[in-house]
Amino acid sequence: MNFEIISVGTELLLGQIVNTNAQDISRMLSELGMNVYYTTVVGDNPNRLKEALALAASRADGVITTGGLGPTGDDLTKETIAEYCGLSCVMHEESRRRLESYFKEKGRYMPKNNLKQAEMPEGCIVLDNDNGTAPGAIVETEKNVFIMLPGPPREMRAMLRDKVRPYLESKTNGVIHSRSLRIFGLGESAVEERLESLMKNLTNPTLAPYAKTGEMELRITASAKDVEAAEEMIAPVEDEIRKELGDFIYAEGENANLQTTVVDLLNQRGLTLTTAESCTGGLVAKKITEVPGSSGCFHCGFVTYSNEKKEELLGVPHDILETYGAVSKETALCMSKGAREAGGADIGIGITGIAGPGGGNPEKPVGLVYLSVCAKDVHKVYRLMLSGSRDVVRERASLYALDAVRRCVLDSLRDDYIW
Amino acid sequence: MNFEIISVGTELLLGQIVNTNAQDISRMLSELGMNVYYTTVVGDNPNRLKEALALAASRADGVITTGGLGPTGDDLTKETIAEYCGLSCVMHEESRRRLESYFKEKGRYMPKNNLKQAEMPEGCIVLDNDNGTAPGAIVETEKNVFIMLPGPPREMRAMLRDKVRPYLESKTNGVIHSRSLRIFGLGESAVEERLESLMKNLTNPTLAPYAKTGEMELRITASAKDVEAAEEMIAPVEDEIRKELGDFIYAEGENANLQTTVVDLLNQRGLTLTTAESCTGGLVAKKITEVPGSSGCFHCGFVTYSNEKKEELLGVPHDILETYGAVSKETALCMSKGAREAGGADIGIGITGIAGPGGGNPEKPVGLVYLSVCAKDVHKVYRLMLSGSRDVVRERASLYALDAVRRCVLDSLRDDYIW
Repeated sequence: MNFEIISVGTELLLGQIVNTNAQDISRMLSELGMNVYYTTVVGDNPNRLKEALALAASRADGVITTGGLGPTGDDLTKETIAEYCGLSCVMHEESRRRLESYFKEKGRYMPKNNLKQAEMPEGCIVLDNDNGTAPGAIVETEKNVFIMLPGPPREMRAMLRDKVRPYLESKTNGVIHSRSLRIFGLGESAVEERLESLMKNLTNPTLAPYAKTGEMELRITASAKDVEAAEEMIAPVEDEIRKELGDFIYAEGENANLQTTVVDLLNQRGLTLTTAESCTGGLVAKKITEVPGSSGCFHCGFVTYSNEKKEELLGVPHDILETYGAVSKETALCMSKGAREAGGADIGIGITGIAGPGGGNPEKPVGLVYLSVCAKDVHKVYRLMLSGSRDVVRERASLYALDAVRRCVLDSLRDDYIW
Repeated sequence: MNFEIISVGTELLLGQIVNTNAQDISRMLSELGMNVYYTTVVGDNPNRLKEALALAASRADGVITTGGLGPTGDDLTKETIAEYCGLSCVMHEESRRRLESYFKEKGRYMPKNNLKQAEMPEGCIVLDNDNGTAPGAIVETEKNVFIMLPGPPREMRAMLRDKVRPYLESKTNGVIHSRSLRIFGLGESAVEERLESLMKNLTNPTLAPYAKTGEMELRITASAKDVEAAEEMIAPVEDEIRKELGDFIYAEGENANLQTTVVDLLNQRGLTLTTAESCTGGLVAKKITEVPGSSGCFHCGFVTYSNEKKEELLGVPHDILETYGAVSKETALCMSKGAREAGGADIGIGITGIAGPGGGNPEKPVGLVYLSVCAKDVHKVYRLMLSGSRDVVRERASLYALDAVRRCVLDSLRDDYIW
């Protein structure tokens, strides 16, 4: 099936917001093996919307719209599509009840205009909106299917995942099922090189890499008669990837991230962590405390930006700073040790480096970062040369720090260290 | 002048990236008072690109494309537009020299394919690319103007700002000039309410509000014969806004942010700051250390997530924690005092709250944050009730903390405090 996406909204044409909806929909369709040949943005203007709609319907099997389902006179997507299909809009009683109770629950009076949101093209499939007032709709004609979704990304995304995806899957005579593997420490080309022969020979399931800031996602997608059959097709591919990439794979699932993996690992094993950050300036602590439940493994962190504070708070010897400088493996080692001791934690990490834009020299250039991990029987230091702007260097350094903690805990598991 | 934007790239249709280019171009055109009626995304497919181009050129005065200027056979934007205009592509010697020296500087061999990037539609205006290999181009025909820009956002953005904007301004018989005011602590509707009569009566300059996460930008844009004349038109409007919004305006310029404002203020006055963070978990320290030069005013910060560490590192009395709890104005006050003392700084801040999703109760709900600032003769505490997810609560709390430091320094200036 071929699709076009039409995003309706003058705020998009004015550049006030970026069109994440088109990306989310495109990505889902691509996962389902469906093609998108054009995406269009059009303002809240009935004639131009009508023109865009007719063109899309003439070229594609399906048209997915976002926006224009609101309560005001400007919101015309449903009406325009109904007119195009020769349908009228009629009050949908269940949607009206949902609307009324939505306002009642919030203790707010419902403006009369909002009732318009419950008027749906006759005979359509109504898509309940669990996060807002505008229901979505699917209209099937002989030639086309029209899928109308609300504009606010939070509402659109939930409806796309919970209502549209199952609907489209039901059209494919089976399911499309994916598993995501999250990878840290290998670049896109390194992953592709290692998996080259595997990727080339796969048609179902398929294997697609997505580069993220500093890390990667590998998505295995199978088309099968049911989820169980898809899982069976995915399993041997996943095994091969795991054999090839080993512990570069840190988690499964498209919402996984390093900080959650680290917090879960630490909590499972009853371990605590203290951070001592110089160039990352609190970014590692911030990431860890993003995770609900991080209070179990993280009691405190230090941001020691000046040399003096590295001495005072972490006990880095004055001599070490004098002799080797703040950005050195020796200082990093002392910082992680000091963090562990001052924080009374099982694991300490220390990060010191030159994030730029200034402060570099030929011997210690911008992007040089020393990262150290200290545990009972472990005291490691890593030398990183990171490229990019100040923000990117800091972001990458923080990811390496989290990964170092992960590897430290996993190693301890393997080697039967006692904590 | 009316424009259409065509973004070329299969990676957009697959949802691998979001179309920030269309947003950046739309925003610039809107600032110049030019209309965008349609935006289209099309893949690297010559027929569909040709079709999209012909349609856009038939409807609009100008067409701006992004992408498809690369060295591979897939990259066909220039060729397609040249063909549409009845032009051939010829080697542009200066671009060829630039390409060759680009590769030479990087110490890399130039693949032969890359030469294609220096072949430009005959008679076009060549737009040098200071950040990559693909030059852009402007082709003027009797009916249309075609502007071709590279796909990578970093290259596109610089070319748009430095080459395309001046070109379009030159077409408007004068300049379009803006000034941005950055506002914290007032919501969009509050700003609009205060400025309602002003906004309603303005035509040149215009006044446009943009909501950002937790803050706002107000942009005053004048169309005039030169920058000086535009500045003169902007000045009285700015005065009126400043009278109305006072110190809710924290800076000027579209790239301004609270952390840079705070670091500059502290550095100018030779003051230092120490942070003590609980619910924000290092986010304030991270923001401050984002700013190059923050080492002048920020020597250390504490993340004290557990009660024990609040006592140990900041000297918060056990009794206070026992009696009032960790999330209380009393604890916040002790944290800011402790931060100032333990950090040996002029100003200390303390932040404690419930970021959620768990941990709330009717008396202390999710979103409750106490924020305290301590200086020589100042000891303040703020009670905030913030809405949103864990991330949003933390983000907002960190912005309020930065603003509290800003206000603390400004107040000291006014009241002749001695630090």
